[in-house]
Amino acid sequence: MDIKVIKIGGNVVENEAMLSRFVKDFAAIKGAKILVHGGGIMASELQKALGQTPVMIEGRRVTDSEALKAVTMTYAGWCNKHIVALLQAAGCNALGLCGADANVITALKRPAKPIDYGYVGDIVPEGINCAILLKFIEAGITPVLCAINHDGKGNLLNTNADTIASSVASALSSEADVDLVYCFEKNGVLSDKNDDNSVIETITPQYYAELKASGTVADGMIPKLDNAFRAIEAGVRSVMIKHAGNLSNNIQTTLKK
Amino acid sequence: MDIKVIKIGGNVVENEAMLSRFVKDFAAIKGAKILVHGGGIMASELQKALGQTPVMIEGRRVTDSEALKAVTMTYAGWCNKHIVALLQAAGCNALGLCGADANVITALKRPAKPIDYGYVGDIVPEGINCAILLKFIEAGITPVLCAINHDGKGNLLNTNADTIASSVASALSSEADVDLVYCFEKNGVLSDKNDDNSVIETITPQYYAELKASGTVADGMIPKLDNAFRAIEAGVRSVMIKHAGNLSNNIQTTLKK
Repeated sequence: MDIKVIKIGGNVVENEAMLSRFVKDFAAIKGAKILVHGGGIMASELQKALGQTPVMIEGRRVTDSEALKAVTMTYAGWCNKHIVALLQAAGCNALGLCGADANVITALKRPAKPIDYGYVGDIVPEGINCAILLKFIEAGITPVLCAINHDGKGNLLNTNADTIASSVASALSSEADVDLVYCFEKNGVLSDKNDDNSVIETITPQYYAELKASGTVADGMIPKLDNAFRAIEAGVRSVMIKHAGNLSNNIQTTLKK
Repeated sequence: MDIKVIKIGGNVVENEAMLSRFVKDFAAIKGAKILVHGGGIMASELQKALGQTPVMIEGRRVTDSEALKAVTMTYAGWCNKHIVALLQAAGCNALGLCGADANVITALKRPAKPIDYGYVGDIVPEGINCAILLKFIEAGITPVLCAINHDGKGNLLNTNADTIASSVASALSSEADVDLVYCFEKNGVLSDKNDDNSVIETITPQYYAELKASGTVADGMIPKLDNAFRAIEAGVRSVMIKHAGNLSNNIQTTLKK
């Protein structure tokens, strides 16, 4: 079986025009698929509206009990259900899930040292419930995963959506041929960051080392690509990086072994 | 097959001690079961914290687009996922759902006249997807329904949780023997409203008419019991009304044909 795991970030979820276009393209994809979404900008806005101060360390949100409520309300509540309702209207039988639902993903609460991130979960491969995800897919259901998991002890945990996407894709790759697609606001990995048409078509691990050495790939793109290559090492067939508005065409960077 | 449909209100969801006790008792129930929950008090609090003014007409929330976000975040987000995580920890394989998820419940947007309630949905029997609910149950999954549905056109709709419970129970009664349990803050229907031990054990439609005529049953209890008797007319085997803290004992009022 072929499965596509597609991840969209807050910039898509929070832009109605882009989300509408993405939903149409995603619904049109034939075959088994899973959507993973973020919603971080909206979560920060909700935190601020509720008088909280969002605290991010190295791009990760420090999630105390009040922040956990805010991110759960945003990701599992509005973002997830809004996307699911739009997908249903587009003919895709979507099922919104956090990790606690049907025990889909159990995460480990991150140790409080050296930095206490609070209710933040790290994913381990055995925490992904492939059996239930495959059962949903075989029933014609498209899982839509938000960035909230649980520890199996009654606590919800906030988890990075990129990591959920790569972890789910990696775990499923022992059962299926999995392609992972990261959608973001650029057409792919660019050889010239100022030229959106300079998309690098294919990156192998060796070429990736060269791109890092030359500085062509830098900053925020490095953890994203590191994460993507880890998924490939774990058995994912390919990882594509592309614009959320381009889901139906072939403008993208493909990472391969 | 026997199925229990159990409804809890915001007063249980929002009280950690009571919720914890309820979750333990609910998880211990053997056999097929569905949980339906509210969360209205918390939704109103969120609305106020976000600078909105909750507007209720005849007990129903006027739900404009901002209020819809607030109720979806509260019901489908925090309340639903918190309950699901607690149930998972108690050994119950819960799956949180709004009506859009796997197209479980499609509702009709209420006409804007005589009162424009905004994004509020009314349930029709054919809007309940019994096939998918039974499929989840047969897979050992316990559906946990919140009070958000969809119209199938991309819109989420706010729906009264009591109505969801009775509609789901009624629809499933053509496929199974269904018992509906309404949990609230009293031990049952009381013959003396000041004496919590004066629980009326059984109410038939004829006895209900007498209780209304004598004024023993009045005010907010009337729509609740009207709703319950409609479920019995629609084929539900019994309706029990009891305290959320008493799920595991037999202190309750039972409504029967």
